[in-house]
Amino acid sequence: MSGSTYGNIFKITTWGESHGKGLGAVIDGCPAGISLTEEDIQLDMDRRKPGSNKYGTKRQEGDKVQIMSGVFQGKTTGTPISLVIFNNDQRSKDYSSISQVYRPGHADYGFETKYGFRDYRGGGRSSGRETAARVAAGAVAKKLLSELGISITAYTISIGNVKAEKYDLSQCSENPLYMPDNDAAQRAAKLLDETIKNQDSSGGIIECKVTGMPVGIGEPVFDKLDSSLAKAVMSIGAVKGIEFGDGFKAAQSSGSYNNDNFYMSEGKIKKHTNHSGGILGGFSDGGDIVFRAAFKPTPSISQPQQTVTNYGEDTEITITGRHDPVIVPRAVVVVEAMTAVTLADLILINMSSKIDGIKKFYIQQ
Amino acid sequence: MSGSTYGNIFKITTWGESHGKGLGAVIDGCPAGISLTEEDIQLDMDRRKPGSNKYGTKRQEGDKVQIMSGVFQGKTTGTPISLVIFNNDQRSKDYSSISQVYRPGHADYGFETKYGFRDYRGGGRSSGRETAARVAAGAVAKKLLSELGISITAYTISIGNVKAEKYDLSQCSENPLYMPDNDAAQRAAKLLDETIKNQDSSGGIIECKVTGMPVGIGEPVFDKLDSSLAKAVMSIGAVKGIEFGDGFKAAQSSGSYNNDNFYMSEGKIKKHTNHSGGILGGFSDGGDIVFRAAFKPTPSISQPQQTVTNYGEDTEITITGRHDPVIVPRAVVVVEAMTAVTLADLILINMSSKIDGIKKFYIQQ
Amino acid sequence: MSGSTYGNIFKITTWGESHGKGLGAVIDGCPAGISLTEEDIQLDMDRRKPGSNKYGTKRQEGDKVQIMSGVFQGKTTGTPISLVIFNNDQRSKDYSSISQVYRPGHADYGFETKYGFRDYRGGGRSSGRETAARVAAGAVAKKLLSELGISITAYTISIGNVKAEKYDLSQCSENPLYMPDNDAAQRAAKLLDETIKNQDSSGGIIECKVTGMPVGIGEPVFDKLDSSLAKAVMSIGAVKGIEFGDGFKAAQSSGSYNNDNFYMSEGKIKKHTNHSGGILGGFSDGGDIVFRAAFKPTPSISQPQQTVTNYGEDTEITITGRHDPVIVPRAVVVVEAMTAVTLADLILINMSSKIDGIKKFYIQQ
Amino acid sequence: MSGSTYGNIFKITTWGESHGKGLGAVIDGCPAGISLTEEDIQLDMDRRKPGSNKYGTKRQEGDKVQIMSGVFQGKTTGTPISLVIFNNDQRSKDYSSISQVYRPGHADYGFETKYGFRDYRGGGRSSGRETAARVAAGAVAKKLLSELGISITAYTISIGNVKAEKYDLSQCSENPLYMPDNDAAQRAAKLLDETIKNQDSSGGIIECKVTGMPVGIGEPVFDKLDSSLAKAVMSIGAVKGIEFGDGFKAAQSSGSYNNDNFYMSEGKIKKHTNHSGGILGGFSDGGDIVFRAAFKPTPSISQPQQTVTNYGEDTEITITGRHDPVIVPRAVVVVEAMTAVTLADLILINMSSKIDGIKKFYIQQ
Repeated sequence: MSGSTYGNIFKITTWGESHGKGLGAVIDGCPAGISLTEEDIQLDMDRRKPGSNKYGTKRQEGDKVQIMSGVFQGKTTGTPISLVIFNNDQRSKDYSSISQVYRPGHADYGFETKYGFRDYRGGGRSSGRETAARVAAGAVAKKLLSELGISITAYTISIGNVKAEKYDLSQCSENPLYMPDNDAAQRAAKLLDETIKNQDSSGGIIECKVTGMPVGIGEPVFDKLDSSLAKAVMSIGAVKGIEFGDGFKAAQSSGSYNNDNFYMSEGKIKKHTNHSGGILGGFSDGGDIVFRAAFKPTPSISQPQQTVTNYGEDTEITITGRHDPVIVPRAVVVVEAMTAVTLADLILINMSSKIDGIKKFYIQQ
Repeated sequence: MSGSTYGNIFKITTWGESHGKGLGAVIDGCPAGISLTEEDIQLDMDRRKPGSNKYGTKRQEGDKVQIMSGVFQGKTTGTPISLVIFNNDQRSKDYSSISQVYRPGHADYGFETKYGFRDYRGGGRSSGRETAARVAAGAVAKKLLSELGISITAYTISIGNVKAEKYDLSQCSENPLYMPDNDAAQRAAKLLDETIKNQDSSGGIIECKVTGMPVGIGEPVFDKLDSSLAKAVMSIGAVKGIEFGDGFKAAQSSGSYNNDNFYMSEGKIKKHTNHSGGILGGFSDGGDIVFRAAFKPTPSISQPQQTVTNYGEDTEITITGRHDPVIVPRAVVVVEAMTAVTLADLILINMSSKIDGIKKFYIQQ
Repeated sequence: MSGSTYGNIFKITTWGESHGKGLGAVIDGCPAGISLTEEDIQLDMDRRKPGSNKYGTKRQEGDKVQIMSGVFQGKTTGTPISLVIFNNDQRSKDYSSISQVYRPGHADYGFETKYGFRDYRGGGRSSGRETAARVAAGAVAKKLLSELGISITAYTISIGNVKAEKYDLSQCSENPLYMPDNDAAQRAAKLLDETIKNQDSSGGIIECKVTGMPVGIGEPVFDKLDSSLAKAVMSIGAVKGIEFGDGFKAAQSSGSYNNDNFYMSEGKIKKHTNHSGGILGGFSDGGDIVFRAAFKPTPSISQPQQTVTNYGEDTEITITGRHDPVIVPRAVVVVEAMTAVTLADLILINMSSKIDGIKKFYIQQ
Repeated sequence: MSGSTYGNIFKITTWGESHGKGLGAVIDGCPAGISLTEEDIQLDMDRRKPGSNKYGTKRQEGDKVQIMSGVFQGKTTGTPISLVIFNNDQRSKDYSSISQVYRPGHADYGFETKYGFRDYRGGGRSSGRETAARVAAGAVAKKLLSELGISITAYTISIGNVKAEKYDLSQCSENPLYMPDNDAAQRAAKLLDETIKNQDSSGGIIECKVTGMPVGIGEPVFDKLDSSLAKAVMSIGAVKGIEFGDGFKAAQSSGSYNNDNFYMSEGKIKKHTNHSGGILGGFSDGGDIVFRAAFKPTPSISQPQQTVTNYGEDTEITITGRHDPVIVPRAVVVVEAMTAVTLADLILINMSSKIDGIKKFYIQQ
């Protein structure tokens, strides 16, 4: 149980290291009959792909996804969908400088203590490259959600201390940082230029919005909609916090302000406000789901750092090679992917909640 | 799969509503040979118990826990430990005012949409009372952790806009709000008096610290130590956000600041700082685990609120009865419980990480 | 993970020992809206109850089941249903003769090796009494299945070398051995009288038939309908084998004989024969599900037996007390229960198999 | 949840169809530090490979396995091991004759009812080819078990009505049918020649023996050692029954005969007999584990058969192409594989059974 399987009904299993033969995901429990092509998935792979701008690492990963199983005549068959992405940029490199040294801010020390040794080439399983498999699986989940009218959009709302001041989602695709505010994106770009010059790195915050959710999705105790999303998003490397709706601000608020009042509008239940971020008591409440995830600065920086070896001596390390000065813009699609996978799972789980729905299902059949 | 089971090896299943016969937890997978008495558990139950001060609801729950199985001659047997807490304060009450109305900020609307109807007495399964079973299970997990020298301490660091300014954990037990700063606790008490007068409620923030963790606990991808804790803690009703170490501040930080340098000290690997909150790449890194959870204000307030009925009409609701003006002090022990259950599980999972440990285990036997 | 939880969506967790305070089951994931009373469950409890005839142990267990949660106004609420059966016949007894001795044919040796010590009173968790909780949970699963027109009937087809020669299910309730052949039951009764006189015990075979199953239930690879039922039924203590349809006879058969041909009848697909036992490729195939489970003779016999102590010495043991000379008649309802729980789970899992069904479900809502 | 993941700690996920790009298995939770090469796995793949004799299908599958991840410097790293077998014999074939017809004895009808349509090329996911991935995963599990001195040997004990009369395991590799009796193998070969001439097929029985098991493996209630093995082995297509130790014969036995007496021998606990098949109360009891699985005759036969179309008309089908007249010899290694995977999982689960072992593990570290 190295924890590479996620989900209960819509269940994904990922595998692969940054410097092995490739990476992949197996999706078990995807319903049959959904249209799916490699191009559908490639769209999201390309959004994650590095090298599209100077703030992403220069490594040319390619990231061409192949569907190995589970699709017949352009539709999912209900059986496992195996997705493979071959690694094609494995230049032979000298890792001797880091093979016995624990990089600060990295998983190296924990990894080696846990397993007795580690694949020191590029972070192995703890590399950011691991998220490629998540994005591939997420693209399939999005196809399922789109059949139900649900859509997910994530975007960068801050990089370092530069924050988006407007939320015009149409601008996200107009700047390389996926910010909903082109002006802020320009300021953030300047900050990143400075960061690169300083051989340093920056953190940032991603916000994610989900529209079209049915009401009542999520389970009432441990598998709440928000607790499930929290696990999914916090499992992305570098995420150090998550908040829903008003989040940490709600802790300073009052009930009379924080409660969203319900009202009827054209026969439907609506809310005047959305302090809850679309989730009440662990269930979707009809409002848009809104959450934010905080990413720490990339730990791989070129400055010399003090650290230790795996044989117990103090040492200094200077990390060379290609590294993102900020991971946030590339992580936008990863946040969407983990959100999609989680929602797909909870939506399928919800189908067995009441006997009426079950009877209808089986009588129809 | 209403999501009432949590954990993989150390696995808890909770049941019960606020106004049924009782609540309980079944712990499956607790190792044999741990000393356990009802008193061990009752200590934590009493910390959660309402009515100990005016900021907790006056309802006299009693909360006497009984061990129904899994303990023989004062020790756990390895088989399921069933814990039951009978509800003994079920005064017959008139729920007609809320039985057909969706309370703002509550799970009512989601619950009824999901299941077709709901147990409207006191929130049913979505009541805060549900956490009593978590606390009972958590007390057992703490016993396991204490055998390994691991201890967990949670405390209130803010209520509304009143924040603790010092962190003297010895003061937590000296004020009814579990704050590590008696002066701040006094200011918070004043705030709460005001809140009660306004028929309103307050939120707050709980911090949790874990000491004594072995290195390498947590799994590298989906079941990271932090993602697992995030799910556990976010599943407590009213939690709207969680952050580890520097958390959201890390998003504004730089890598050169945020990375914790390693150094050797008396043959052991140490860190100069703990921006990571004791977790790197999803593994415990030898530092104390530190996280904070944001609680929203209690949604049950006595002010009249606008809302709708379950038959689709606008209405006004005034919630009467006993409700906490702030849930935070009573939730401190719930945060500890969910942390304990999660750590116990990940610590047991970690035992199968390397073949050397497995061979030693079976050769010893 | 002591393996006390079973199922994925319809998930049961059992707890309790033969000589503790009681036993119970928590059912998580039972759909809301199913009528359920304690009487519904008690009917099956009474079928399992010992002491109703001389071939069952004389112990008066009572076995009154209580619903502790998950039912409101006579209907399941979708939240966990906790069922408790208090032990009320715990006469203080001297267990010193067996506390340090491993009974042949029992779990004692394995239990003590695994856990370091054991609750030696009456078998603890490995007692046949453990099945009371299964029966209670199974009764709830049957209520769900009956809403879909599915019914389960198990019966004794052999005891020792006495076999039923006709299968008149109406006769099952007419003899204390649940045989579909009153004449065979009389012969079996004579055999058991002889068995008791010899201080010995007998085995037997139970057959189970399920009617009304929808087609396509079961998952194609590991969670086949038959592999899932095999696990469920083999987990009942004393079961040493299971076979579906022609079972072991099919191993001597030919494809041309064993294949069940399909044909159309009044617009429906039918099979001329049912060698498959209603399951093909792991899916229900429209025929009745038919399987048989072999039970070994009760290991507790009054004859002196050679064995060893837990401190490594040879010894002789004479087991006293109340024990069934044959477990089979009381196990009939246990086989039904495990079948019901398994079918309920697979039927709920099947609901997410195709996107058409999912879209209909959510559009209807 | 199409049920393609199996196991809790040592967890395998398989994917792939007979006529897609390939098949594979992902093993999550394999401990780090085990030597593993592609050759280790290929040895078992070759035992399953068809075409090695005239009783296996002539299809040249190749079945070259590739390790895609999880191994570094010749050792497992603790992260997922992805194994891929590319399909390289996908001759374009005309499936129009079976695409709309439900083959008797096959999964076609259930598959199409469940998923709405099916990949009709060669059985898709329900093809025997699916077992290639199981064998690959099983080879890894065997490597783990061999580190603990546990070995698994399966062999054919009957084909049709020809039974092995002696059990000389050294003879298994001397005949193409894996029988421990060369004379019986010759008689079985004659039977199969006859079977082929008749355009028919035969069933058979495989026995499996496990030596070197530690005592106490298996969990006491649902996850018993035998119930877990039953699920694993019954999930292999064509298996219709399984029995442990004396199995169905035990149902006709008496307790005084069936109980295996314990005795001390050189300080160790032994049993005079092994009627239990090495499992008591769901735990390994120190004896060899012995079970038998009954395989039905291959359903694909060349004789014309009556059946129906998926548009509801009676029809006749004549199945052409390459099919095994008996599946049993090729299934021997599949039975070993599913046994290995199950034992590996239960052995890792067992490590958390008692606090003493846990304390030793963490104090050593």
